[in-house]
Amino acid sequence: WRVMIALEEKLLQGYKHKHLSFDKNEHKSEEVKALNPRAQLPTFKHGDIVVNESFAACLYLENTFKSQGTRLIPDDPAEQALIYQRMFESNNLQKKMYDVAFYEWFVPEGERFESALKRNKESLIDELKLWEGYLEKMGKGSYLAGKNFTMADVVCFPIVAYFPRFHCPKERCPRLMEYYERVKDRPSIKASWPPHWLEKPEGPDT
Amino acid sequence: WRVMIALEEKLLQGYKHKHLSFDKNEHKSEEVKALNPRAQLPTFKHGDIVVNESFAACLYLENTFKSQGTRLIPDDPAEQALIYQRMFESNNLQKKMYDVAFYEWFVPEGERFESALKRNKESLIDELKLWEGYLEKMGKGSYLAGKNFTMADVVCFPIVAYFPRFHCPKERCPRLMEYYERVKDRPSIKASWPPHWLEKPEGPDT
Repeated sequence: WRVMIALEEKLLQGYKHKHLSFDKNEHKSEEVKALNPRAQLPTFKHGDIVVNESFAACLYLENTFKSQGTRLIPDDPAEQALIYQRMFESNNLQKKMYDVAFYEWFVPEGERFESALKRNKESLIDELKLWEGYLEKMGKGSYLAGKNFTMADVVCFPIVAYFPRFHCPKERCPRLMEYYERVKDRPSIKASWPPHWLEKPEGPDT
Repeated sequence: WRVMIALEEKLLQGYKHKHLSFDKNEHKSEEVKALNPRAQLPTFKHGDIVVNESFAACLYLENTFKSQGTRLIPDDPAEQALIYQRMFESNNLQKKMYDVAFYEWFVPEGERFESALKRNKESLIDELKLWEGYLEKMGKGSYLAGKNFTMADVVCFPIVAYFPRFHCPKERCPRLMEYYERVKDRPSIKASWPPHWLEKPEGPDT
């Protein structure tokens, strides 16, 4: 999803894409493996250049099409620093969200513990407090790294979008949910919205 | 460590740094928390700009001091793409290495399973095969993303350096170990080598 948001923001709408289902093991196909030995998604190809990690593909697109479409990483060092900070910090939010929402998916039956899931939930709640604090500091109507939509939003929005799907209580993250409601109608986000999320607006999914 | 390698490569040797011990909980100090609400390391400050994620700090340094010292991310799109790819891919290598080397550190007693540790080990062995393949394809004497030392090496070398510490059998990753032996004497790496690794060349450590 991240790569598609970046493509939309950089006005590269002519891209070909294919949505594959983990449920059906489509990511293990020979077509994917030819591009990506990990057989993971996303897999991205531009001319002869193959990039398989979403962060890598997004940074590649921004650097290659710097002056086209939305400037996702501006020149100002302080702005850049905050964008990078939020981008990489979001790995914590993603991991903690996965450790709760996909606990049963990741941990085989027989190795599951109520204590572990409880610990994961507490850790996620603490993480959400940090992000609530960031948004509060930034002020109403702002994006994750300031007044403009940046690479921080490209990378983080798809994580934030999981929370309403999984019925995360709104009072746990009111500011993030306000951000979600505001950003979900942005053209790049709407154009790249996962098709199976449209069909089935509520999780779980894979 | 990554940030210090980047600082050395960008000829920013005048930096002040402080090595903190997780064992002694020094990362939870007020001094760190003032810079980093997560109380995690590394924490990096340049003038008034604070960046706490190692990837973020490294990208910030490269962009801010592009023409100073080693060019860690060149302009060529294909080279850039491979550097980003290896940088972000290394999160897999790091996670899988941690899941084996620090299994007992991460998983509380009573939640540990031989089956889980075995699965983690197999996953790490598969991961190492990928990296061996990359180095083989690149040819003898090369770095992780080509003929030159780049940001891919800044980010990945500190992960690779864990393997000899933990007595990973050399036959599991002969090319990575050849790479390790060659790169460990590079001035930026030597100058930033973790002091507690000098004192105690073998793991485990925290």
